[in-house]
Amino acid sequence: MFQIRTDLAVETSESRRGEKDVSGFRVETSREGDGIVITKVCIETQKAAKTLGKPRGTYISIEADQMMEEDAGYHREISDVFSRQLKQFLPEDYNNRKILIVGLGNREVTPDALGPKVIDHLFITRHLIQEYGKYLMEFDQCCSVSGIVPGVMAQTGMETVEIMKGIVGETRPDLVIAVDALAARSIKRLNRTIQITDTGIIPGSGVGNYRNAITKEHLGIPVIAIGIPTVVDAATIVADFCSGLMEQMDRTEQEDGMFGSGVYGEKSFEEMVRDLISPKLNTMYVTSKDIDEAVNRLSYTVSEGLNMTFVPQEGNVS
Amino acid sequence: MFQIRTDLAVETSESRRGEKDVSGFRVETSREGDGIVITKVCIETQKAAKTLGKPRGTYISIEADQMMEEDAGYHREISDVFSRQLKQFLPEDYNNRKILIVGLGNREVTPDALGPKVIDHLFITRHLIQEYGKYLMEFDQCCSVSGIVPGVMAQTGMETVEIMKGIVGETRPDLVIAVDALAARSIKRLNRTIQITDTGIIPGSGVGNYRNAITKEHLGIPVIAIGIPTVVDAATIVADFCSGLMEQMDRTEQEDGMFGSGVYGEKSFEEMVRDLISPKLNTMYVTSKDIDEAVNRLSYTVSEGLNMTFVPQEGNVS
Amino acid sequence: MFQIRTDLAVETSESRRGEKDVSGFRVETSREGDGIVITKVCIETQKAAKTLGKPRGTYISIEADQMMEEDAGYHREISDVFSRQLKQFLPEDYNNRKILIVGLGNREVTPDALGPKVIDHLFITRHLIQEYGKYLMEFDQCCSVSGIVPGVMAQTGMETVEIMKGIVGETRPDLVIAVDALAARSIKRLNRTIQITDTGIIPGSGVGNYRNAITKEHLGIPVIAIGIPTVVDAATIVADFCSGLMEQMDRTEQEDGMFGSGVYGEKSFEEMVRDLISPKLNTMYVTSKDIDEAVNRLSYTVSEGLNMTFVPQEGNVS
Amino acid sequence: MFQIRTDLAVETSESRRGEKDVSGFRVETSREGDGIVITKVCIETQKAAKTLGKPRGTYISIEADQMMEEDAGYHREISDVFSRQLKQFLPEDYNNRKILIVGLGNREVTPDALGPKVIDHLFITRHLIQEYGKYLMEFDQCCSVSGIVPGVMAQTGMETVEIMKGIVGETRPDLVIAVDALAARSIKRLNRTIQITDTGIIPGSGVGNYRNAITKEHLGIPVIAIGIPTVVDAATIVADFCSGLMEQMDRTEQEDGMFGSGVYGEKSFEEMVRDLISPKLNTMYVTSKDIDEAVNRLSYTVSEGLNMTFVPQEGNVS
Repeated sequence: MFQIRTDLAVETSESRRGEKDVSGFRVETSREGDGIVITKVCIETQKAAKTLGKPRGTYISIEADQMMEEDAGYHREISDVFSRQLKQFLPEDYNNRKILIVGLGNREVTPDALGPKVIDHLFITRHLIQEYGKYLMEFDQCCSVSGIVPGVMAQTGMETVEIMKGIVGETRPDLVIAVDALAARSIKRLNRTIQITDTGIIPGSGVGNYRNAITKEHLGIPVIAIGIPTVVDAATIVADFCSGLMEQMDRTEQEDGMFGSGVYGEKSFEEMVRDLISPKLNTMYVTSKDIDEAVNRLSYTVSEGLNMTFVPQEGNVS
Repeated sequence: MFQIRTDLAVETSESRRGEKDVSGFRVETSREGDGIVITKVCIETQKAAKTLGKPRGTYISIEADQMMEEDAGYHREISDVFSRQLKQFLPEDYNNRKILIVGLGNREVTPDALGPKVIDHLFITRHLIQEYGKYLMEFDQCCSVSGIVPGVMAQTGMETVEIMKGIVGETRPDLVIAVDALAARSIKRLNRTIQITDTGIIPGSGVGNYRNAITKEHLGIPVIAIGIPTVVDAATIVADFCSGLMEQMDRTEQEDGMFGSGVYGEKSFEEMVRDLISPKLNTMYVTSKDIDEAVNRLSYTVSEGLNMTFVPQEGNVS
Repeated sequence: MFQIRTDLAVETSESRRGEKDVSGFRVETSREGDGIVITKVCIETQKAAKTLGKPRGTYISIEADQMMEEDAGYHREISDVFSRQLKQFLPEDYNNRKILIVGLGNREVTPDALGPKVIDHLFITRHLIQEYGKYLMEFDQCCSVSGIVPGVMAQTGMETVEIMKGIVGETRPDLVIAVDALAARSIKRLNRTIQITDTGIIPGSGVGNYRNAITKEHLGIPVIAIGIPTVVDAATIVADFCSGLMEQMDRTEQEDGMFGSGVYGEKSFEEMVRDLISPKLNTMYVTSKDIDEAVNRLSYTVSEGLNMTFVPQEGNVS
Repeated sequence: MFQIRTDLAVETSESRRGEKDVSGFRVETSREGDGIVITKVCIETQKAAKTLGKPRGTYISIEADQMMEEDAGYHREISDVFSRQLKQFLPEDYNNRKILIVGLGNREVTPDALGPKVIDHLFITRHLIQEYGKYLMEFDQCCSVSGIVPGVMAQTGMETVEIMKGIVGETRPDLVIAVDALAARSIKRLNRTIQITDTGIIPGSGVGNYRNAITKEHLGIPVIAIGIPTVVDAATIVADFCSGLMEQMDRTEQEDGMFGSGVYGEKSFEEMVRDLISPKLNTMYVTSKDIDEAVNRLSYTVSEGLNMTFVPQEGNVS
């Protein structure tokens, strides 16, 4: 009807809750620790992927209302849960492997700076391992971690996937982890959800510009995408609101025994809405007023989780 | 009806266009250069102020669709127009006076960084004049310019007006110029309008948090506020959209000879809308995807205008 | 002889080690934890102050070679030691008092960004306490903490002390804590020493520009200064090197039975050195190549120490 | 004797001024505009390269004492001179070619941020030309410009040349332009000299860490390096000072009819100096106190010169 955009599989799956089961599509929910909800969405067939409008693969989301609280202990708990969920996507022998972590997005735009800020806090080890070799590696099961902040196309003139392909071809990592800010459908999920998926990522989708996909297909090695929704598309917020409005109107009209859902003159309610949604709205997004604090805190939570996964150390081991 | 928030007097005045004249309220429009529209809104009586929901005073807005184009020459023209309009608010003998320019807002949040970035590009002269005195002052009619970026309350724990009062009391400027990012009602005005007013400013209003006013009343000296809208309140965008929708519905219903404007069951359309607008929306704002480039460019345009007004130099004089 | 500049009392005291005791001057050294050296320098009389070229007062320095290591646990230990030493300077009933913490220095210059970065990581509570009052205060012995980054004179046109005086006069804190980057004499102390003193601070001294002092005398309330040396004056490094050279030359000449210490033609060695030290060197400083990492890490260590002192919380209490 | 490090060929050539001509080595000097000195150093043979310790190639330096003045007109003049000198290194048909501009260095360290800041201000056109094609290209002789800020090894774990090789292999530019901060020998050249060379660049050399070279040999396409000295090695400043001291001492000793140049006991003066120069000094550099302003201004001067060379536009053409 109206285009509702979300990068979160958990939101896509929610909107399907009422429908009769889509085959090839599974959702599992569990709880951990203090109010942390884990949802696993599996899109198993090409048909389910098409129906749901999301690529085939596994999506895990970690949701916690308190993710925005200033509580160092709680953030450590989330980092820990995140690290354990992430390991489900890694091969058993991932230790000692070479991991390239890419921080997607535009550092100059606060809600889009999540990826670059995560890279800022990583333990980067590739150059140390290359220089000191086994000496460094023997005392720990430490991965070779490299990191890059490629920038966005307006800054570089290049597709992010071009930059990534070049670097992957030259430095030969075993796995790419792409961290990006996402767009949610619902403002209640903003800054409160971490999604991990094995489908790769479409950079810029967090703020709406289509870019070539960063996927195993393009890079030749597995790509795990980690994202946190920091924005809602402005068109989505209006369209979503109108959907809610229509539902209410339909309900009340039916109760009143009135006919049809909002036909006004020659235009349907839907057409009126579509006419009013300005094309300019498509270059707009909604974000929260404390987005600077949210992105700072969440970038630490994610980088801590990545560090405890790939460079376990005294005081870092969960 | 729904709360439509705007910091722009030109938008307040527009919404009054249909009504019979409000006394004590004048609007004049003129054009300059290449597609630059100047609107002067005068709110002359306390009654008009109350009706319009804006303090008594003069508001000049400079609008230009091309304000976002990458054209150094055009930006120079806008700086020039801005400087000339600003001079209307200055006393005739403003040269050699002491001006304190304050960059309001949060540097860490892209659309709120306008004020701090303007301060970055200013010619600061107060310390030079204090040290070298007349020598520096004789070759030019140069103001003593000082600048401050006070930060926001979440960073300082202090109201901006407390910081300003303290600094004004200690350094005794003749005039404060406060630069801030504003909230518009319409996305079409974002990044395309400069407002100058003699009413002072309510900092944080650009992103919605009320703060004590920075006004002549509080500081004891005149305060000229300069603002550019970089955000729209999320609640405003939804409410505004619904107003548009209701107007259309009313029109079509009237054409159809149908009764009443959207009464559905026991709730009016308006009530339904109000119920659906989440309180969370009040901590959200809408901004454009290229807000980083917009704020960078506009901060130069404003600071250039301020520099050519207060520190005219060879190559700076229009 | 040559001007050796240092902001560290521990270095001033070292250079006096050989001399017969200066009365009114005491130095005590102790050790804590893993290689942490605490030195307390007391300058008790005006005469001692004049002799040593440092204002009368107490200076505590915390030195640790490992202060630059990437070890979260060790940094926590240093924060803890720092907090305990800091408490020696606080009145016994400091809890519930109003503290204003000021981050001196220029955020745009990496070694001078220490103060501003400390403010970034503080728990700011003043506005919360003012809004929520006792409710917030009863569950903890929490100080009212406000913070400010005043900028440097080239950015503001104002002396830092003017800005501070204004803010102190308006917001009435009980105590000012001023955090600043310092200049050491020896590169071995860079990024490895925290100095706490009750003498206040001369901002900008870290990179050499004299500014009016931020002291109890000027502000009317006690000022505790916290500093970490991040630079060495370029002139100091050359002069210090030459002093070392002269000592060696003198020693060898005496062994050889040669007369005098380096008289060459009509100029003494000292005069030659002085002639060669370019005045340009006075606008130069020496810093380390990894200064970005050092300042990031140390700003966390200091802010953690301040947070555990003034806003003790679950997970924050030592 | 002592290791004097400089990235500037003009300084290498100066230190050879007294010697009898080195064959395969030419220096030409000319003047332009208001106090701008152009020096062209040609190192034509492998033997000359070895003698001088600089790779074979052409080095043009543009020096101007006023390069630090706040004079927009003068900076435009320097950008213009720079653009004309740069064109000497470009093929005649460079228009419509594909240029990749890389900003080397660490954005977080003020004197090393020159390269990244130049990229910030570039007109990036590659993505526009790829999307809009000839339409855009016909109205101007515009190059396809892409840009990248690869970061430094401590941030990425990768050699810059690895990243560059990957990106060059993937996006196939015709030419790389590498912009970097350099190390000078003399503080008087800091922030006042632009060097252009066709030899490529060794990244990190500006602050001393050796990295694999970014050269035609490694990348397969020509590499033009543009650099501005923003630091002096701390060891160089001390060593250079001592060289000056020794010269003076030698001179005076000879005048006095004294024997030998500084033999003290068993150690020569030179040996004493070498002993005193701490190895720690090798991780230190000297920079100026106003380095933030210098790097901001110079990054504009260089990017303006690059923009007028590669994306000539109305108002941009010299």
